[in-house]
Amino acid sequence: MAFLNDNYLKLKAGYLFPEIGRRVKAFCEANPQAAQRLIRCGIGDVTEPLPPAVVAAMHKAVDEMGVRETFHGYGPEQGYEWLRAAIAQKDFRDRGLDVADDEIFVSDGSKCDCGSILDILGDKNKIAISDPVYPVYVDTNVMAGRTGPANDAGAYGKIVYLPCRPSNGFVPEPPKRHVDLIYLCSPNNPTGAAAARGQLEAWVKYALEHKAIILFDAAYEAYIQDRPSPGQTPASPPPAGSGPGEGRGSNSSNIPHSIYEIPGGRECAIEFRSFSKNGGFTGTRCAFTVVPKSLNAQARSGEFKPLHPLWHRRMTTKFNGVSYVVQRGAEALYSPEGKAQVRALIEHYLGNAAVLVAGAKNAGLKVFGGVNAPYLWVKTPGGVTSWQAFDRILAEANVVITPGSGFGAKGEGYFRISAFNSRANAEEVASRLQGLKW
Amino acid sequence: MAFLNDNYLKLKAGYLFPEIGRRVKAFCEANPQAAQRLIRCGIGDVTEPLPPAVVAAMHKAVDEMGVRETFHGYGPEQGYEWLRAAIAQKDFRDRGLDVADDEIFVSDGSKCDCGSILDILGDKNKIAISDPVYPVYVDTNVMAGRTGPANDAGAYGKIVYLPCRPSNGFVPEPPKRHVDLIYLCSPNNPTGAAAARGQLEAWVKYALEHKAIILFDAAYEAYIQDRPSPGQTPASPPPAGSGPGEGRGSNSSNIPHSIYEIPGGRECAIEFRSFSKNGGFTGTRCAFTVVPKSLNAQARSGEFKPLHPLWHRRMTTKFNGVSYVVQRGAEALYSPEGKAQVRALIEHYLGNAAVLVAGAKNAGLKVFGGVNAPYLWVKTPGGVTSWQAFDRILAEANVVITPGSGFGAKGEGYFRISAFNSRANAEEVASRLQGLKW
Repeated sequence: MAFLNDNYLKLKAGYLFPEIGRRVKAFCEANPQAAQRLIRCGIGDVTEPLPPAVVAAMHKAVDEMGVRETFHGYGPEQGYEWLRAAIAQKDFRDRGLDVADDEIFVSDGSKCDCGSILDILGDKNKIAISDPVYPVYVDTNVMAGRTGPANDAGAYGKIVYLPCRPSNGFVPEPPKRHVDLIYLCSPNNPTGAAAARGQLEAWVKYALEHKAIILFDAAYEAYIQDRPSPGQTPASPPPAGSGPGEGRGSNSSNIPHSIYEIPGGRECAIEFRSFSKNGGFTGTRCAFTVVPKSLNAQARSGEFKPLHPLWHRRMTTKFNGVSYVVQRGAEALYSPEGKAQVRALIEHYLGNAAVLVAGAKNAGLKVFGGVNAPYLWVKTPGGVTSWQAFDRILAEANVVITPGSGFGAKGEGYFRISAFNSRANAEEVASRLQGLKW
Repeated sequence: MAFLNDNYLKLKAGYLFPEIGRRVKAFCEANPQAAQRLIRCGIGDVTEPLPPAVVAAMHKAVDEMGVRETFHGYGPEQGYEWLRAAIAQKDFRDRGLDVADDEIFVSDGSKCDCGSILDILGDKNKIAISDPVYPVYVDTNVMAGRTGPANDAGAYGKIVYLPCRPSNGFVPEPPKRHVDLIYLCSPNNPTGAAAARGQLEAWVKYALEHKAIILFDAAYEAYIQDRPSPGQTPASPPPAGSGPGEGRGSNSSNIPHSIYEIPGGRECAIEFRSFSKNGGFTGTRCAFTVVPKSLNAQARSGEFKPLHPLWHRRMTTKFNGVSYVVQRGAEALYSPEGKAQVRALIEHYLGNAAVLVAGAKNAGLKVFGGVNAPYLWVKTPGGVTSWQAFDRILAEANVVITPGSGFGAKGEGYFRISAFNSRANAEEVASRLQGLKW
C-alpha cells in the first residue's frame, strides 16, 4: 500500500502563475481581437535576448561538446571551479566581502534552491515568511510538512507571517517572538521594495541573538541603483542611522547588494542569487547559492554543526550539475563585455520601470517599488480586489498584471506590474493604464 | 535556534564517486608517471562527443536565444510540448505502449528525479532496494528520514534489501513480506544485468497485489540488444515462460525496454529515463520521468489518489524547466539522423563491453553483465575485498574501476568495469587485466 505525501493535499488552489496562464488563455480564446494587442506584465520573465557575450560563449561550448578532445561529461555537481571562482571573486571579494570559491554552489535555478534548502533543515524549525511573498517559499514549506493546514484566508498554520505594509516600506521588522528560519527577499518580489542597510542590520542582530538562519533571496540584486534616480523616492524608508559599512568594500549605497555586507551575516545567512534577471537566463537556467562555512545549525544532540557539508552532500547526491554549455554562458556574464551588456539590460528594464511608475502615477494610482527593482506594487483603486483588478485590466486594457493576493493575504488590494518588456510596450501600458476608469 | 536535518548525520562516509576521485587524485599526485597512463573505467561517464545532430540543434537554439523575436524565457516547468510529444510518441507509442504526452516530465537528470520522487511519497512507506544498488536510491531515502541508522555493515534500518546474486542473475525476486516502494533498475547499474520479461511480470504482479509502487530506472534502456550477441551468454536467466507480449508492439525481445510493456505497469510504476547514456548528455543534462495518470497511492484518509497531479505540482513549484537550448538538443536525438547517431554510439560502447568481457575472461576472471549494459560486474579473485581490488588495479594496471562494496554490502567481492571509453582504451584495459597477477 504505497502512501502519498499528504502535505501536498494541504496546498490551496494552483500555483499562482499557472492560474494566470489559464485565465489569460481563456480570455484570448474568447476575445481573439483583444488577444492581438495583449501585453504581458504578469509573470516576471525577461523579454530581451541573451547578451552577445553569452551567445558567443555558448556557441564555443557547444562546439567543444561536439569534439572528443574537448567534450565534457559529468562536471562537478557544485559547479565548475572556474565559474565558482568568477562568482566568488567578482560578486563578493571584489566588493570586499569574504566568500570562498567553495562556498558557492552553482545550480539550475534559485526557485529550485529555495525549495531544496529545506532538505538540510530540521522539521522543528519555526518559519517566518513575509506577507506578501514569492509563493515558492510558502508552498515548499507546506509540501515538506513544515506547516499546518490553511485557514479560510489561505494562511497556513505554524508559519509566522511578517506583514509588509506601506508603513514599514514593505520590509518586515523582526518579530517580537522567536523564529528559527526567516525568508527575506531584497529587492523584493513582488513589492519591489529594497531593504536598507539598517533594516538588514536589525535582522542579522535578531538572527544572531536567536541563533536563527536568514534565507536571503537576492535574485534581483542587480537592480539596486547605487544612487536613487532623480525625482524618484525609494519605496523603503531611509536607513536607520547607519552609514556605509567601514571596510566593507567600495559600495557606498545604503541598500546592500548582499546579506554578507552586514557584519555577522556569514554566521546567520544563506544567500540565493540567480542569472535569470541580470543575464536574462530565465530560459537558460543558472543560479547559485552561497552557504558560508561559518554557518551552523543545531543537531538533535544539542551540538551546533556547520550546514556547508550538508548542502554539499545534498548537491552531490541529489543533483548532477548544470549543463556545461550553460555554465560557460554564465561565466561570460563576468567578462568585461558581459558586464557591460548586463548593465545595459538592467538600465533598459529600470528605464521601463520609470516609465510605468510615471504612467501609473498619472493614472492616479498609488505606486510603490519600481526604483531598485523591476516590479511596481500598485494599490488597487476603489476597493476592488486583486483578482477583480486583474480581470478588469485584462478585459479593458488587455494587459496582464499579477494579482497581489496571489502572493499572500496581505497582498490583497494590490497588484504587481512587471517592467520586463520592450520600451514601446512599457510606454503603451503606461498609456493604457491612464485610459482605465475605476 | 535553527535545526539541521539530523538524517544527514546518519549517512555513512562520502558518496561513492567523490571517494574514488579522492583516491585517484592521491595516487596520481604520488605517482606522476603512472598517472600518464591512467585509464578511467570507474564512474559511468560517457567519453564520446555529442552527436552532430545535437550539436547543430543546440547551435540553432543558441542563435534563437540571441535574437529578441526568437528568444525564450521561462518554458513550461515540465518541458516543452514538442519534446514531451516526441518522447511519448517515439519511445512509447511507436512501440505500442500507451503513454500520453503529459505523462512525460522533462528534467535535468534521472539522479535528481530518483531523489525528488520521495517528495510526493509518504514517510510510512516500506522501501525495498536491491543490493548492490546505485547509491542514490539509498542515500536519498536516508536523507529524507525514511530509514533507521546504519549498522556496522553499512545497512540502514527499515530498508528491505533485495540480494542480487549469480543464482538470480542479479535480478531480485519479489520478497515474501510486504513492501510499498520498490526500486528496480534494468539494465542494471552496477551489475549490468537486464531483467527478463518474466521477472518484471512477477514484480508487476507483486506490486498490484500489494498496491505497491515500482520506481523503474531505465536509464540504460538503449543498451538492450534485442538479440543476444553470438557467443555471449546473457547474465539474466532465461525468461520464465513468457513469449513476446501480444499486442504490446513490435519489440520481440524478452528483455523489456519499459516497465509499461508489462500489462498492469501503468497502474503500479513510475519510469525514469535519461539522455545521459544514449545521447551522451552526462554534461549536457536532460532526462525525463513518466508518471502515468492511472497510478494511485493512498492518502492518510484511506482514499487512493493519483500521483500525477502531485508530481506536476512538485515540478511546477520546485523546478523551473530544463534549458531551452538543451531541450532542443534532446529533441534532435529523435530525428532520423539523431537516431542513427545514437545507435552508433551504443554500438561503440557495447563493442567496448564485448572487448572487456573477452579480456576479463581471458584473465581468468568471473564476469557478469556487459551484454545488454555498458557495465561488467566482475568477481574479485582470491578473496580480496572490493577496495583492495580497486587499489591493486589502480596501482598495478593504472586502471580505475569501481569497488562493488560502494554499491552495498552484497557488492563486496565484486568490482564494476565501465565500457564508456575509446575502443583503444577498452583494448588496452582488456590487455592490462591479463597482466595482473592475483
